[in-house]
Amino acid sequence: MKISIIGLGLQGGSIGLKLREKGHYVIGQDYLPLHEKWALELGLVDEIMPFAQAVKESDVCFLAMPVNYIESTLIKVLDLVDTQQVVTDTGSTKEKIGQAVKNHPMRHRYVAGHPLAGTEFSGPKAAFSTLFEGKKNLVCDIDLSDKNAVKTIQKLNTDLGMKTVFMDSAKHDKHLAYVSHLSHVSSFMLGLTVLDIERDEQQIFELAGTGFGSTVRLAKSSPETWAPIFERNQKHLSDALGEYIAHLTMFKKYMDTGNLDELKGAMSRANEIKRVLDNTPPNTSSNK
Amino acid sequence: MKISIIGLGLQGGSIGLKLREKGHYVIGQDYLPLHEKWALELGLVDEIMPFAQAVKESDVCFLAMPVNYIESTLIKVLDLVDTQQVVTDTGSTKEKIGQAVKNHPMRHRYVAGHPLAGTEFSGPKAAFSTLFEGKKNLVCDIDLSDKNAVKTIQKLNTDLGMKTVFMDSAKHDKHLAYVSHLSHVSSFMLGLTVLDIERDEQQIFELAGTGFGSTVRLAKSSPETWAPIFERNQKHLSDALGEYIAHLTMFKKYMDTGNLDELKGAMSRANEIKRVLDNTPPNTSSNK
Repeated sequence: MKISIIGLGLQGGSIGLKLREKGHYVIGQDYLPLHEKWALELGLVDEIMPFAQAVKESDVCFLAMPVNYIESTLIKVLDLVDTQQVVTDTGSTKEKIGQAVKNHPMRHRYVAGHPLAGTEFSGPKAAFSTLFEGKKNLVCDIDLSDKNAVKTIQKLNTDLGMKTVFMDSAKHDKHLAYVSHLSHVSSFMLGLTVLDIERDEQQIFELAGTGFGSTVRLAKSSPETWAPIFERNQKHLSDALGEYIAHLTMFKKYMDTGNLDELKGAMSRANEIKRVLDNTPPNTSSNK
Repeated sequence: MKISIIGLGLQGGSIGLKLREKGHYVIGQDYLPLHEKWALELGLVDEIMPFAQAVKESDVCFLAMPVNYIESTLIKVLDLVDTQQVVTDTGSTKEKIGQAVKNHPMRHRYVAGHPLAGTEFSGPKAAFSTLFEGKKNLVCDIDLSDKNAVKTIQKLNTDLGMKTVFMDSAKHDKHLAYVSHLSHVSSFMLGLTVLDIERDEQQIFELAGTGFGSTVRLAKSSPETWAPIFERNQKHLSDALGEYIAHLTMFKKYMDTGNLDELKGAMSRANEIKRVLDNTPPNTSSNK
């Protein structure tokens, strides 16, 4: 197939790399000429073309840019495509993108996607072909897309190494606020807090263990990518963040009053996350 | 050398395994007979002995148990040792342990240690011989220890694969509150918050990406180990936690008022943690 990718960062670049490996022909476009140059040099794409031409010449067009740009670009792309072409995206929030094209006459050629894959790095140089291996693409609101368009995206998900999971976009945004966006805020603010209170930078470097490194990893993520996600998922994320602050405040109170039993109780309940992430049923005692 | 290890969990077990590899003879003791049995079966120790005998027969005694038990046990151990023996520990807070033995006549045979190494797992079965490889042992208040005792511990640190870093215990506890303990609280409460607000457990399993997994990893840690650490480092950790809550509250306000510039600004400042952890000087632009 002929694939166009608009936005050649970590996600777009990795899609290009993998789909080229799978024998597809990949046309790239990025608003930064330097990213286009790197994408060619790194073999992420076969060819660079201007935006409208890239869209027009492809069977499937991927939008892989920050969510705030996806909304406006998606309209432009849908203005250009015909009933044989398919458009998809990699945006981490889905409800507002869906609303932006709700009444577009070509809405049915758009398949809303969200590959659950990423690293804390960004840009074409961060791309690698196994980014999506074993991951999931959350494909939303398929009742608004043509069946053959959905099938095409499912096929490409398989080529990328991803399982397709169908969801409703409102439900998607709510669950992602809890399971993905909140942990990014938690990590960003942990990084900033430690930088603000630990005046001696060298001590952070000297004393940081693997635990701190793991917890603060997401604080290295791109603000250009994540600020618009937080903004677009404001309602759900703000609720979740309020709950997180309430939990931390409760924990601080237990600490300040020396309530060791409540501290341990809260931590034991938090330990349950291991069982949930391992997908084992409750009351199964694990062998330590 | 003959080594005794009181407490055969992740840390004690890993010390035994590695020191046995290095040719030392290792005597173990744990308050749980099952842990003693596993430690023998897993080859973490050469032999199990009752507490007093284990201490008396060893050249160096390691206390590797939760910090609340170290204080009382350390006094008992110092009551037993002579001027040829050395005692050390693996406690994650150092000030209160030091205070507990401040006036003990054998204080000079104790060398306060804190190996900056661990995982989210606990118990003898979590032990592995490379746990300390390339890590640091923060050795505190060495002006209170005999020079030859400090030298012995430095030598054993080398055998364990660790670099020795000398610190003052008050400074230790403050810096560790920022760089280690706070990230544990952040992770514990993230896990608990998500469990509390996401009623559909299956969604957590289905939608959790590597980012969430990384941020919530420390929430799997043992409450028995960590609650006493938080309690003993209450003052510094409570201050740090207060700052963390303030940062999160500020971030929530930016989100709720749609202040995208401030959101991005805070995240860009948090990105600095990458440079600090890489130990590169400020104003060195990295090539994305």
